[in-house]
Amino acid sequence: MTLIVHKYGGTSIGSIERINAVADKIAKAKQCGDDIVVVVSAMSGETNRLLALAKDANPNPSPREMDVLLSTGEQVTIALLAMALAKRRCPARSYTGGQVHILTDSTHTKARIVAIDDKNIHQDLKQGRVVVVAGFQGVDESGNITTLGRGGSDTTAVALAAALHADECQIYTDVDGVYTTDPRVVPEARRLDFMTYEEMLEMASLGAKVLQIRSVEFASKYQVPLRVLSSFEHGQGTLITAEDERVEKPLISGIAFNRDEAKLTILGVPDLPGIASNILAVVAESNIEVDMIIQNVGQDATTDFTFTVHRNDYDKALALLQKKASELGAREVNGDNKIVKVSVIGVGMKSHAGVAAMAFKALSDEGINIRMISTSEIKISVVVDEKYCELAVRALHSAFNLEVEVQEAVRES
Amino acid sequence: MTLIVHKYGGTSIGSIERINAVADKIAKAKQCGDDIVVVVSAMSGETNRLLALAKDANPNPSPREMDVLLSTGEQVTIALLAMALAKRRCPARSYTGGQVHILTDSTHTKARIVAIDDKNIHQDLKQGRVVVVAGFQGVDESGNITTLGRGGSDTTAVALAAALHADECQIYTDVDGVYTTDPRVVPEARRLDFMTYEEMLEMASLGAKVLQIRSVEFASKYQVPLRVLSSFEHGQGTLITAEDERVEKPLISGIAFNRDEAKLTILGVPDLPGIASNILAVVAESNIEVDMIIQNVGQDATTDFTFTVHRNDYDKALALLQKKASELGAREVNGDNKIVKVSVIGVGMKSHAGVAAMAFKALSDEGINIRMISTSEIKISVVVDEKYCELAVRALHSAFNLEVEVQEAVRES
Repeated sequence: MTLIVHKYGGTSIGSIERINAVADKIAKAKQCGDDIVVVVSAMSGETNRLLALAKDANPNPSPREMDVLLSTGEQVTIALLAMALAKRRCPARSYTGGQVHILTDSTHTKARIVAIDDKNIHQDLKQGRVVVVAGFQGVDESGNITTLGRGGSDTTAVALAAALHADECQIYTDVDGVYTTDPRVVPEARRLDFMTYEEMLEMASLGAKVLQIRSVEFASKYQVPLRVLSSFEHGQGTLITAEDERVEKPLISGIAFNRDEAKLTILGVPDLPGIASNILAVVAESNIEVDMIIQNVGQDATTDFTFTVHRNDYDKALALLQKKASELGAREVNGDNKIVKVSVIGVGMKSHAGVAAMAFKALSDEGINIRMISTSEIKISVVVDEKYCELAVRALHSAFNLEVEVQEAVRES
Repeated sequence: MTLIVHKYGGTSIGSIERINAVADKIAKAKQCGDDIVVVVSAMSGETNRLLALAKDANPNPSPREMDVLLSTGEQVTIALLAMALAKRRCPARSYTGGQVHILTDSTHTKARIVAIDDKNIHQDLKQGRVVVVAGFQGVDESGNITTLGRGGSDTTAVALAAALHADECQIYTDVDGVYTTDPRVVPEARRLDFMTYEEMLEMASLGAKVLQIRSVEFASKYQVPLRVLSSFEHGQGTLITAEDERVEKPLISGIAFNRDEAKLTILGVPDLPGIASNILAVVAESNIEVDMIIQNVGQDATTDFTFTVHRNDYDKALALLQKKASELGAREVNGDNKIVKVSVIGVGMKSHAGVAAMAFKALSDEGINIRMISTSEIKISVVVDEKYCELAVRALHSAFNLEVEVQEAVRES
């Protein structure tokens, strides 16, 4: 018997019509013989409605009570979906996080799952029932309701799949898979049939908002096969696993980009040991997260130091840096919040030289000046002026031939 | 230390403004030194919104899933109220029925409370917290969410007051107490300061929709002092206890009326043993509830048999009765759904003769023909034509001098 965990997000179940459509889909899969556990989010709009109510009751509400409030969103959906399934002669039973029971730590609004009791679920599956579980929520040891934070339903689904040793965890969403890049920027972008957890993590953290990073980490840790697919259309979606099942591994899987960053540079800092941490400490103390960091040797025993922060933190970080610069006797501080980070991602990169050179040439051919470079084992990120964003993404997508399947590309060459 | 259980219904907390007003009221009571446990319903409109969603998912939903769905209504309110209290520097903690834990039987949508665990609540009260509990809901032994049925929040409040040995259970509502009759019919109707459980039960079951019957029965069984008062205005409300604390017991406490009934009569039935149950069985089998029943001896060893049902069941009951009549060889069947039942209620009646005579004279003085009469220890009910409803209520209200306090009435006489 194949056991599949389905997960449907807020858009997929945003109305009664959508809930009924999802019930049709599940009932059909059940008829095909799968054992099915379904994880659902709150109906889209519901969480924002509840947040607005909370804000009017108390602009600074206790996290414990926020969790009591927000967890009702998924509870409504599990009941409605179980009802809709029953109407299709598909026996179903709903469970809140507490009922499963999904034990978490006590960090309200961003709790972490500690353990899952799969007894009830196994019993229901044995009796031929579809089990419908509220995503995003659990209980702590004292029985307090907790939530896992936004996007936590993905994590619930993966954690349940791991606990139940499910054959696959299927994340149904409003896109039909993971693409080589954003199709709104590159119309030739192609859906990937396969990719690895590592690649997905880079894609997710770099701005491709398909899956929550935490759920991919979780899937990777417990080796849960993860499939991203559309809840609106038929299709195989994208299967994400540890071992790439492709015979011909593609060099590059995709191009990600992120417009939310800003760049800051401090020039002519005395090049002394500890200078980097000295500069970053002042930023970190203000709870500003730093992404890329680059240090170059300058002239006259000084150094130039550049880093990127979220664009919302730009003004604050610039003020901090200017203060620090005068302390350190640096020559100059400058910054730019009109930048974009573009990344070339692929596990194939590990075993192929020359990817960086190919990427840089593609950008240079279009006259795009690279402002920063940062690399890891499976990615190359460059910072360029924001106005070049689409051009850079298209140039890289085309340079690596991403619009065609790798096998075809090999045959053609 | 005085421990008070407050209960606020849907209208009292129908908006964020109302929730904030209720929080003000509770914070003030807390400052006065009371220990407070608050029971709340769903915000008005919420239950109907959820019912509409359920209907679209499945016109015949499973009671278990209905309870999962509907119980979210109160869960939203407890969180919002706890937040609003915290904003007023009044520490508070919310509990769902399952968290308290309120153990019920497994009769979904109309479960009965079996036991209440007061450990958590006592601990919170000791730490100076207001405890906010979701009304209307509990869990069964298997951890399934149950609900007590409409109006169940009153029952939760009384049951909690009993379990915690509270000094009083205060039911806040949109009226400022129990009146001698409906003030919309008799402008001189007077709020009662005191009444007994027995009187309240008669008032509630006869159409004065202030309190749920079950909660009054519960209060009576566990001797919980119950106070009905306004959540919108200040005032002492009406205190309901077992022993009437009034020195001068009034003869009559109030006049109730019910426009929801219809009357059916079968005439000229052979007067044989078992004939009454024979006739009523056919009605009961169709799940039609019967209220008043009257049998009179007729002519020629036949009998006339009259009973009342809910007006919605009138057509169905009439058809059943006509079929039965021909079986039994009865002379005639007739009915009337333009009737009203008017009741005179008061514990004082027990020790005073002549109340019935006074009531009948008051009606007769107004030319109102009495169609049926039924009496109990503390009430006299009459059925009259619907058109006389207001006139009958006013005549009785005035005949028993209900517009003035009994003490004054005694002094005047």
